[in-house]
Amino acid sequence: MGFDFTAEDEKWMQKALQEARLAFEEGEIPVGAVVVQNNQVIGRGHNQTERLKDVTAHAEIIALTAAFNYLGAKYLPPDATLYVSLEPCHMCAGALYWSKIGRIVIGGADEKHGYRRFYGSQSPFHPKTEVEQGLLAEEGQQLMKDFFKGKRK
Amino acid sequence: MGFDFTAEDEKWMQKALQEARLAFEEGEIPVGAVVVQNNQVIGRGHNQTERLKDVTAHAEIIALTAAFNYLGAKYLPPDATLYVSLEPCHMCAGALYWSKIGRIVIGGADEKHGYRRFYGSQSPFHPKTEVEQGLLAEEGQQLMKDFFKGKRK
Repeated sequence: MGFDFTAEDEKWMQKALQEARLAFEEGEIPVGAVVVQNNQVIGRGHNQTERLKDVTAHAEIIALTAAFNYLGAKYLPPDATLYVSLEPCHMCAGALYWSKIGRIVIGGADEKHGYRRFYGSQSPFHPKTEVEQGLLAEEGQQLMKDFFKGKRK
Repeated sequence: MGFDFTAEDEKWMQKALQEARLAFEEGEIPVGAVVVQNNQVIGRGHNQTERLKDVTAHAEIIALTAAFNYLGAKYLPPDATLYVSLEPCHMCAGALYWSKIGRIVIGGADEKHGYRRFYGSQSPFHPKTEVEQGLLAEEGQQLMKDFFKGKRK
């Protein structure tokens, strides 16, 4: 994809993947996300749609809400970054739009439910948000494959 | 818009508008929503982004989550309807997609933040979801106008 990710980026994406693995262990679709600012995690989340019986309980929404709570603010600062192990869906892309977050780093593409399937050439994000994709993509996608392989057994 | 709304529909949209007025009184952008099944409200919500300092706390998300809790299920049944006083944004349209709700009845259009601005000709909703727009549209839009007029003073 041609993005230059740093070792720091990789470290935070590993944290998002760790969240995804937690979801996997809990029988949830394995997606994880962290919000990072000033070199620390200010929000984390993994998919909890089964546990909460709520299809809006995606990793990104939980991580964003945790970050809003941490900051006591309803917007995220321009120097905050969300790392997510898989391409967000169209709902989560909308939530990220409202958050005004500065940067989004996405792992693997999600051809079935990823936001790009819905928005076409229109960007769902805030004009000031930078979006980069493809960091540790295989890891995030492999977790999904393993999860659905297990489900089909 | 050519949709045939019943007196029942109007009754439920009045409940959604009542929720919108609650938001208005609390200094929140006045949007309200109710989820109805078997002739009763199973979820209600109004915008609480200021109070919760969380831009994902839209009326529709709160009403959906309340309905999931009520049903103890992560999907809504085909005979459930969401009534919302204003056109949902692209995040809420995504949440409604995941809910698989049977029917969505929308009040006024929202040209600035409504989902149609983002999705173009692509529908963000589940293929089985019916969407109807324009019920008591003026009431929902007037609340918004009054709210932002007050803000500009």
